[in-house]
Amino acid sequence: MAMTDVLRPGYLQVRVLDLEEAIVHYRDRIGLDLVEVAPDGRAYLKAYDEFDRHSIVLRQADESGLDVVAFKVSSEAALDALAGRLRNAGITTTTIPEGEQPGVGRRIRFRVPTGHQVELYATIALSDQGPMINNPDLWRTEPRGMRAIRFDHCLLHGQDIDGTAKIFTDILGFATSEVAVTPDGQPIAIFLSCGMKAHDIALVRHHEDGKLHHVSFLLESWSDIGHAADLIAQHNMSLDIGPTRHGATRGQTIYFFDPSGNRNEVFSGGYQFYPDNPTRTWTADQAGKAIFYYEKKLHETFLSVVT
Amino acid sequence: MAMTDVLRPGYLQVRVLDLEEAIVHYRDRIGLDLVEVAPDGRAYLKAYDEFDRHSIVLRQADESGLDVVAFKVSSEAALDALAGRLRNAGITTTTIPEGEQPGVGRRIRFRVPTGHQVELYATIALSDQGPMINNPDLWRTEPRGMRAIRFDHCLLHGQDIDGTAKIFTDILGFATSEVAVTPDGQPIAIFLSCGMKAHDIALVRHHEDGKLHHVSFLLESWSDIGHAADLIAQHNMSLDIGPTRHGATRGQTIYFFDPSGNRNEVFSGGYQFYPDNPTRTWTADQAGKAIFYYEKKLHETFLSVVT
Amino acid sequence: MAMTDVLRPGYLQVRVLDLEEAIVHYRDRIGLDLVEVAPDGRAYLKAYDEFDRHSIVLRQADESGLDVVAFKVSSEAALDALAGRLRNAGITTTTIPEGEQPGVGRRIRFRVPTGHQVELYATIALSDQGPMINNPDLWRTEPRGMRAIRFDHCLLHGQDIDGTAKIFTDILGFATSEVAVTPDGQPIAIFLSCGMKAHDIALVRHHEDGKLHHVSFLLESWSDIGHAADLIAQHNMSLDIGPTRHGATRGQTIYFFDPSGNRNEVFSGGYQFYPDNPTRTWTADQAGKAIFYYEKKLHETFLSVVT
Amino acid sequence: MAMTDVLRPGYLQVRVLDLEEAIVHYRDRIGLDLVEVAPDGRAYLKAYDEFDRHSIVLRQADESGLDVVAFKVSSEAALDALAGRLRNAGITTTTIPEGEQPGVGRRIRFRVPTGHQVELYATIALSDQGPMINNPDLWRTEPRGMRAIRFDHCLLHGQDIDGTAKIFTDILGFATSEVAVTPDGQPIAIFLSCGMKAHDIALVRHHEDGKLHHVSFLLESWSDIGHAADLIAQHNMSLDIGPTRHGATRGQTIYFFDPSGNRNEVFSGGYQFYPDNPTRTWTADQAGKAIFYYEKKLHETFLSVVT
Repeated sequence: MAMTDVLRPGYLQVRVLDLEEAIVHYRDRIGLDLVEVAPDGRAYLKAYDEFDRHSIVLRQADESGLDVVAFKVSSEAALDALAGRLRNAGITTTTIPEGEQPGVGRRIRFRVPTGHQVELYATIALSDQGPMINNPDLWRTEPRGMRAIRFDHCLLHGQDIDGTAKIFTDILGFATSEVAVTPDGQPIAIFLSCGMKAHDIALVRHHEDGKLHHVSFLLESWSDIGHAADLIAQHNMSLDIGPTRHGATRGQTIYFFDPSGNRNEVFSGGYQFYPDNPTRTWTADQAGKAIFYYEKKLHETFLSVVT
Repeated sequence: MAMTDVLRPGYLQVRVLDLEEAIVHYRDRIGLDLVEVAPDGRAYLKAYDEFDRHSIVLRQADESGLDVVAFKVSSEAALDALAGRLRNAGITTTTIPEGEQPGVGRRIRFRVPTGHQVELYATIALSDQGPMINNPDLWRTEPRGMRAIRFDHCLLHGQDIDGTAKIFTDILGFATSEVAVTPDGQPIAIFLSCGMKAHDIALVRHHEDGKLHHVSFLLESWSDIGHAADLIAQHNMSLDIGPTRHGATRGQTIYFFDPSGNRNEVFSGGYQFYPDNPTRTWTADQAGKAIFYYEKKLHETFLSVVT
Repeated sequence: MAMTDVLRPGYLQVRVLDLEEAIVHYRDRIGLDLVEVAPDGRAYLKAYDEFDRHSIVLRQADESGLDVVAFKVSSEAALDALAGRLRNAGITTTTIPEGEQPGVGRRIRFRVPTGHQVELYATIALSDQGPMINNPDLWRTEPRGMRAIRFDHCLLHGQDIDGTAKIFTDILGFATSEVAVTPDGQPIAIFLSCGMKAHDIALVRHHEDGKLHHVSFLLESWSDIGHAADLIAQHNMSLDIGPTRHGATRGQTIYFFDPSGNRNEVFSGGYQFYPDNPTRTWTADQAGKAIFYYEKKLHETFLSVVT
Repeated sequence: MAMTDVLRPGYLQVRVLDLEEAIVHYRDRIGLDLVEVAPDGRAYLKAYDEFDRHSIVLRQADESGLDVVAFKVSSEAALDALAGRLRNAGITTTTIPEGEQPGVGRRIRFRVPTGHQVELYATIALSDQGPMINNPDLWRTEPRGMRAIRFDHCLLHGQDIDGTAKIFTDILGFATSEVAVTPDGQPIAIFLSCGMKAHDIALVRHHEDGKLHHVSFLLESWSDIGHAADLIAQHNMSLDIGPTRHGATRGQTIYFFDPSGNRNEVFSGGYQFYPDNPTRTWTADQAGKAIFYYEKKLHETFLSVVT
C-alpha cells in the first residue's frame, strides 16, 4: 500500500445556465462564500471552512454539467512526478499555466476514459476569509444556508469506469473504499479515496460519457441534513431524494438540483476510511440498499438524470 | 510537505488497578467489544467500527497510566524505513517480536524525550467482528454504551514536548495542526496529525515525564456526547468536565475517569485536517479558550490530574 | 374557549395476527416495556416514560386493525359529566366495568360516526416501572430500540369525519389544531388536540369506516428518528416513508408497518399547541405539502393501506 | 384534580440598564423579533413561533430585574372568575386597564408573598408575524441567533415560596411537578405547571424577596443548545453554566447573562407533564443533581446572583 500525494478534490468547475440564479443557489442556499465574479465571467466560491481561495467555479454556458474536477497534490515536485507517471502510462497531459484561474498555479490536465477532464495542481492562494488561525473562533461569521463545510466530492457517470478507476488507483494512488459488482464481477460503481474520506470521487457505469451525477458538500450533522431539507422545502428547490442514508459510505444525505439541473448532495457522517481497510463490496441485487439504505431501492430520476 | 507512512494510532496499552472493573467500564460504558482476556492476563478490546483486532489493551498493575502508544504504518517496508530514520537520528529502537500481543506483527519501540514509550508496527490481524464488508449493514449489532466508534488519540504530558514533537514531525512525518505558545514563543501544547484528524497525538508541557492526560474515543455526534453525559451521570462515573467544546480542534467533548483514575474523553465533530493547512496558534493567555471554548478557563483537576 | 377535562389518549387496543411477533416488534423495536401477557391472551405494554400501567394493548385476531382508542379524563366526576354530555347529544354509551383490562377502572364506551370505538376512563393503576419520582434518574434503564417515550396519538380513517370531529370538539372539548379542506370547504383531514400536543387524534376522510391509518409514538429528537430509520433498515422492517417532516404539525417522522400490517409512526418535534391558537388550514391542492413537507406529494401506499 | 383556566406564561416585563444593548441581545442573540419600541420607551419582542403580539417587554431602568410576570387565561369570564377567587382568598387585586401595553386587554395584577408582581389577562392581539396559518411553511424566515421558539418560564426567588406556590396551586389551579425539600420537609424549590410543560413557573427559597433568577426560552433540540453555546462563546456573552442537563424537568440547558446582568436560560427537551403525574421529589442533599444532573453540584454564582 503506497500513500498518495494527492491531498483532496480541490475544486470543481460546473456549467450553469444562469449565473445569477446559480450564485444565489450556491451562496445563499448551500452557504458558500462568493469570492468574486472574475472578469472572464466565472464565479468563484468557497465554503467557510476551506483554507484555499476557491473550491467551486461556476461558468455560464448553454448546457449544464461539469467542465473539470481538480485535485490538489502535496507539492510541485509531487505534481511533476504524477504528471510523469501519467505520461508514462500513455495518457496525454496538458499544462494549464498559472493564472488561468485567479490564484491557482500551473495545472496538469488529462482526460479519463469516461470522458471527464481531470486536473492536478499543487499551488493555490490561501483565502483571507478561510478559517481563523490565531486564537481562532469557530467561524468568522455564523455559517449561512445549509452551512456547507466544504466541497467534498463528485460522482461521475460514464462507460469505462474500470479504466478511469485504474488511473486513480494505479497512477494517482487512490484506494478503493467500495465497489458494486454485477454477478459476472463487472463493477457498476466504484468509490475512490485519496485520504480518510470514504470517497473523494465516485464512478458509476452509464451509457453516456462525461456526465456529472452530483456535486457533494459536507454538513456537520444529521441535524444539519434536516435543516437542509427544511430549506429545500421552504425555498421550493427541486428535491431528488432524502433525508436518507447511504449503505455505501454510510453517509446521511439529501439530493436536490441547482437551478440549472445539476444535482447537488449535502451529506454528513459516514465512516472514516484508511487505505488499509478492506474494500466493501456490494452485489448488484443489493444496489438499492447500497445507495439508499432506508428505501432499499433506486428511483428513476436518480438513475437517469445527469448533466 | 511530505506525506507520512504512519496511518493512525493503532492501539494503546493502559495500566488499570482492577481489570474486572476496567473491563466493565471500557466494554459496557465506553461500548468497546472485549476481544479476549489473554493468557498473559491482558484484556484486549476494540471499537465496533475498527477493522483491526484490537485497539485498547488493559494491563492490571499497581499504578494506572500508559504503557505504550502504538502507531500503525502502511507496510513492513515503511516500518523498516521509519526505524532506519529513527536510528539515524540517534534514537534507540527495540524490536518487539511478532506475537508479543496476539495478532500483532513485529513492532519497533522507542522512547521519546517526554519519557513515553512509542511503537510502530505494520501488521495486525483483522478482526472477524470488524465492520461488515459484503453488502454491509451499519453495524453487526447496535452499538452499546457511549457507542465509541474508534480509539482516536491520546494526550501525553511531559517536559520536553518540543523534543518529542520534533520526532513526530521531522522523522515520522506528522503535521502540526495546532500549537499554544508562551509569550516568549515556547510551546506549551502541540497537536500532531498523521492524516486528516485534527490530532492523532497531543503533547502538553508538564513537570513530570511519561504521564497520560487522557485517552480519547470518537463518537458520532453532539447527540451522542449528550448521551454519554447521561450515562456518566446515571452510572455515577467520575466526571471531569463537559459536555463542552474545544477551541483547539473544535471538537465537542466530555471528560471523565475510568475506575483506575485514567482520564477518558469522548468527543465528536471538530474540523478535518490536511497537512497543507496552516498551523493554528494560540497564545498562552488564551489557553482557557483553546481548551474549553465555552468556559474559557481551565480548572484545577484538568491541569493537575494525570496518570 | 372551554378547557377540556380529557387529559390524553391513554391506551390503544390493536389487533395483531401473531402475538409473539407483535411483542417482539413493539418491545424490541419500538422499545416498549412488556407489562404482562394477561390470562385473557392480551399483551399489555407501556413506554418507559409513561406513569400509567399500560398504553398499548395487543390482541391476537384474524384481522389486524383497531379495537378501541381510549382517553384518560381528569376525574371520575369529569367522567360522569362527559358521559352525560354524550348521552344528552343522543350518543349511546356503554359502561365497561372496572377490571375488564387489568388495572383500569370503569370505562365509558361509545361509537363515533366514522365507526371507531372510543372510550373514556378516569382511573388506571400507576406502573411500578414508571418514571422515577424520588431523586429521579433520567430512566431506570437505558431506553431500548427506537426509544419510544410514549404512545402519542392515532390517525383514524372513515367517511363522516365531520361528525366524529364534532363529538370531540363540541362534547369532549377538544380544539382543532389543523384542518385540510376541499375547494368547496369540506374537511378531508382534521387534527384535534385536548392539550398542548399538535394532535391527540386525527381523522382523514376515507371510503371505508372504522379504519386505522397509524399508531404513533413520540421520540426525543430528529437524531432518534434517524436511529429509528437505521433500525428499520437493519431489521428489515417494512418502511412506508421517511425520515421526513410533516407540514401539518411540523413533526419529523418515519412510517413503517408492524408485522401484522398496522402502520406505525415514530415522530419528534413539531410545535406545541394551545387551544387559543388559530386553526391552521390547508387547501386540498397542498395536501402533499401538508402531509410530507419535503416530498410535497402523497404516495399510493400512504393513501390506500389502512387496517 | 381540576383543570386550570390559566393557559401559559404570556409575557414578562424585565428591567434592563441599557435598552439598546438589551435589544441587540434579545433580538440578535436570543433571536426574538422586535415588535416595536413604543412611545413609552418600552421595547416589545416576541419569539418567531408565538402567535401573541409580544412575550417579552424590556423597560430601561436603573436596576435590572423583573417588573411583572403575566399569565394568559382562557377567556374574559375565566379572568373574572380567577380574580374573584383571588379576592375571596384575601388577596388584593388591581385592574390594569386595556392599553397600558399595546394590544393587551385588561389585566388583573396582584402581589404574591415572595414579593413578585403577577398578572392575569385574557386578551392580547395576535401578531401579524406569528406562525403562518394558511398552507403554512415552517417559519416565515429562518430563525435567527439561538432560534428561541418561545418565552417559556421564569424562576423567581424569595422567602415565602410556600405561600406563593399555594396561590398558584389552590387558587389558580397549577399542579406541582417537582419539589425539593429539606430533611424537615420544608420546600426549597417548587416547580409549577399550568399545562403540559414540566414548569410554567418555578420558585426557590432565598433570603431576598422579589428576585428574578432567570428568564427561560425554549429551543428545539440539544443541537440548538450546542449552537447557543457556540454563539455565547463567539459573542463573548457571560456564561453561567452549561451545556448541561437538569435532573429536575430533565431539560437540557445553558445559562448566561443579558448585558444588564439578568440571567437567561435556553433549554430543550425534558419531559412533558400531565396534572395527574406524581410530583417528583428531591431531597436537599441531592439538590446538586436536581439542578445540574451532570455536575451534581451547584456553583456559587448560580446560587447567589439574582436580579
